[in-house]
Amino acid sequence: MTLDNCFPLAARAALLEPSSIRELGKLARNPGMISFAGGTPDPALFPTASIAAATAAILGESASSREALTYGPSEGYLPLRTSLARLMNADGMRANAENILITSGAQQALEFIATLLIDPGVRVIVTHPTYVGALQAFRLYNAELASIPQDESGLDLRSLELELAAGARFIYLVPDFANPTGLSLPLENRQAIVELCARFGVPIVEDQAYRHLTYESSPPPTLLELARRHGRAGGVIYLSTLSKVIAPGLRTGWILAPEELHRKLVMLKQASDLHGTTLAQMIAAQLAESVMATQLDGVRAAYRERRDAMLAALEKLGIPGLRWSKPTGGMFVWLTFPATMDAAQLLTYAVEEQVLFVPGAAFHADAAGQNTARLCFAAGSIASIEEGMVRLGVAFEKLHRAPDAHSASLR
Amino acid sequence: MTLDNCFPLAARAALLEPSSIRELGKLARNPGMISFAGGTPDPALFPTASIAAATAAILGESASSREALTYGPSEGYLPLRTSLARLMNADGMRANAENILITSGAQQALEFIATLLIDPGVRVIVTHPTYVGALQAFRLYNAELASIPQDESGLDLRSLELELAAGARFIYLVPDFANPTGLSLPLENRQAIVELCARFGVPIVEDQAYRHLTYESSPPPTLLELARRHGRAGGVIYLSTLSKVIAPGLRTGWILAPEELHRKLVMLKQASDLHGTTLAQMIAAQLAESVMATQLDGVRAAYRERRDAMLAALEKLGIPGLRWSKPTGGMFVWLTFPATMDAAQLLTYAVEEQVLFVPGAAFHADAAGQNTARLCFAAGSIASIEEGMVRLGVAFEKLHRAPDAHSASLR
Repeated sequence: MTLDNCFPLAARAALLEPSSIRELGKLARNPGMISFAGGTPDPALFPTASIAAATAAILGESASSREALTYGPSEGYLPLRTSLARLMNADGMRANAENILITSGAQQALEFIATLLIDPGVRVIVTHPTYVGALQAFRLYNAELASIPQDESGLDLRSLELELAAGARFIYLVPDFANPTGLSLPLENRQAIVELCARFGVPIVEDQAYRHLTYESSPPPTLLELARRHGRAGGVIYLSTLSKVIAPGLRTGWILAPEELHRKLVMLKQASDLHGTTLAQMIAAQLAESVMATQLDGVRAAYRERRDAMLAALEKLGIPGLRWSKPTGGMFVWLTFPATMDAAQLLTYAVEEQVLFVPGAAFHADAAGQNTARLCFAAGSIASIEEGMVRLGVAFEKLHRAPDAHSASLR
Repeated sequence: MTLDNCFPLAARAALLEPSSIRELGKLARNPGMISFAGGTPDPALFPTASIAAATAAILGESASSREALTYGPSEGYLPLRTSLARLMNADGMRANAENILITSGAQQALEFIATLLIDPGVRVIVTHPTYVGALQAFRLYNAELASIPQDESGLDLRSLELELAAGARFIYLVPDFANPTGLSLPLENRQAIVELCARFGVPIVEDQAYRHLTYESSPPPTLLELARRHGRAGGVIYLSTLSKVIAPGLRTGWILAPEELHRKLVMLKQASDLHGTTLAQMIAAQLAESVMATQLDGVRAAYRERRDAMLAALEKLGIPGLRWSKPTGGMFVWLTFPATMDAAQLLTYAVEEQVLFVPGAAFHADAAGQNTARLCFAAGSIASIEEGMVRLGVAFEKLHRAPDAHSASLR
C-alpha cells in the first residue's frame, strides 16, 4: 500500500510548496559560500551575555524557574506583553498590553491572521513585490492576491484605489524597510493609504519587523498611529518581532489587535500550540527594554556600514542597466536587472562563484519579477560583502557571455 | 464603525470556542484553591538544575550560543530529533530521525495533522471520551467526529468496525493512560485495532503523550510498532511530547510520519512559525537522553503515590453510584456519577469548597458525559489530594441535599 493510500491529504496540503529560499539555505552552509540570500541578522550582534545572565537568573530562582518551565497563558507572558506595549508607546503609538498576543515569531502572526481572516477566494491586497512568508501564509488559505506597485514615492495610490474599490478582506503592508525591497512609505503616502482604506472600509495588516533598523532619521509614524489619529485604530492589526533586534532563535513575535479579534487570536493560539516557550518569553521580557537602547545602537551602526559597503560595491560593479534600491534601514537591497535577464539563471553562475542571493520571483504574488533579486547585507562582514559582490560581478559576466549555456535549474 | 465591520472574520473563526478548562485555570490561581483540573505535571519534579546547567553550557560557548539564538531548520534541531528517535527505539519501535518533525508541544502536532488531513466534513474517529485539545484541533477544520466507546478491556471492536466501514480519514487514539480517562488499550485490543484499520485502509494517529508515566509494568507495544510488524508502519502517524516527563514550558513535542507526509509537515511548520525556539530544542536535546532515566524514576515514584492517594480517597468518600477508572499510569482518574447527576452543577459547589475538577462533557465529541469528571492527581502533594477529596465529598453532599439550588453556571 502506498503512502498516499494510507494518508489521503486534505486539499489544502497541495497549497504547500517547498520554499526556494529554504533550498538556498542548504547551499549557504557550503564552506566558502558567501550568502546574501538569508534574511538573517548577524549572530555576532546578539546580546548573548545579557541573555545568558537573564537565563541564569530565571532558572536560578525557585519561583521563576517553575514559571519558566511549566504551562503558561496562551496570551503570552504578561511582563513581556507589558514591555512590548511600552516599546510601541515609546515609538509614538498607544498600545495596550491586554490586546497583545505573543506569537512564535512574526510568521505565526501572519499565519494566525490568515487563519482568522481569509475564506477561500477572498481578495487580499499586497505590494508587488512583498514578503514571501506572507504569501505562503495567505496562499495556504486560498486567498486571491492582488498586487500594487511600490517605489521610492510609496504605494501607487491610483492602483490602490482601484483594488480597494474591487473589494478586499485586508491589505498587508510592511511600511518600513520592507522585505524584500528595503523601501519605506513616505508620510504623505501613509496618510493617503489610511484615508483610502478608511473610505473603502478595508482593514490594514501592518508588519513592522524592520522598523527599528533605521540608519538615517526616525521613520514616520506607523499606520496604526495614523489610523488612530483618523479615529480608525480598530482598522489596523499591528505585528512585529524581536528577531531582528534581539535574536530570532527566541521566536518572539507579537500581534496587537482590536479586542474582539484579539480574543479569537488567543483561542487560536491555544488550539494551535497552547502557548510559546515560557523560558524564551521570560528572557525576552527581561531584555526587551533593558538592552534595547544599546542593541539598537550596535545593530544600527553595524548594518549601516554594511549597507554602505553593498551600495558602494554595486556602484563599482557598474552592471549595465542594473537598478537598485537605496534603503535607509532594514536588511535588504533590491536589484532590478534589464527586463530580459533571468535572475534564476544568474543564480546558477553565482553558485559556481560561491555567492548566493534570492531571485525575486518568489516575492511576487503573480510570479513576475524574473529580472529581480534580493540581497541581504546584514549577515556578514564588510570584507565578505565586498568579496561577495565581486563574485556576483563575475557571475554576471559569465551569464552575459553565455546567456543560453545554463538552464534556470535553481529557479 | 464597529470592530466586526473593520475585520470581517473568516467562517472558520466561528469554530473557535473559549475553553472551559482555560476558565478553570483562572479559578485555580485563587489562594487556597486545590485544583485537580489542570493536566499539569508538578514543577517540583522538573529537572531544573540540569536545565540550568545545560543552558549555561549552551550560552557560554560561542558556536553553540550562536546556534541557539539564530534561525534554525524547520524540521527542528537535528541532535534533538536523533535523541527522540533513540528514545523511541529504546521503547521497541524503529524510528528514523529524518522522519521526525519537532513541534511546539503535542498540541501543534495535532493542529498540523488536522491541517494536512482534514477537509471540511470528512469523518474522523475518536474515543468517547477523548482529549479535548484534539477535539479543538479537529473541529477547527470542520471534521465530522465519530466516537467509539472505550473501557478497561479496550475499544469496542464492534463499534470500531462499524465506524471504519462507514469510512474515515483517520482514527485518533491515545493508547496509554489516556487523557481524560487514564485507560490503556490491552495488547490484544491493539492488535485487533491495527488489523481492522489495515483491512479498511484507515490510518491511525497515535498520541503517546503519557506512555512513559507507567506505574506498574511496561505498557504493551505501541500501535506504530504493531503496525510495523503487520507490514503497515506507513499507516501510523506517531506523536508525543517531553512536556510530561521533562517540562512543558520547553514546548517540545514531535511527530514521526511517513516520508511523503513528513515533507508536507516540514513545509507546514515553515509556513506556520518557521521553527521552534532553538534554545529550548538544544536544552531538550541535552536532556532527552541524559536525564530521562532519573526523571522517569522520580516522576513515576511521585505520581504513583499520588494516584494511590486519590484512589484511596475515592474509596473512602463512598459516594453512592460513583465509579472511577483505576489507571496504571498517566495523570488522570475518570469519574462516572449516576446518569442523573450533572458534574457541572457539582462544580459550582466544589468551587465554593475550594476544589476544582473538569466536568467531563468537554471531552466528548457529542457533548455527552454530563455525569462524568476528570481529576488530575499529578499536580499536588498527597496532603492536598486528601484534603481536596474531602472537599469534593462535601460538595457532593451539598449537591445531594439541594439538587436544584444551583444552576450549572460553570458548565
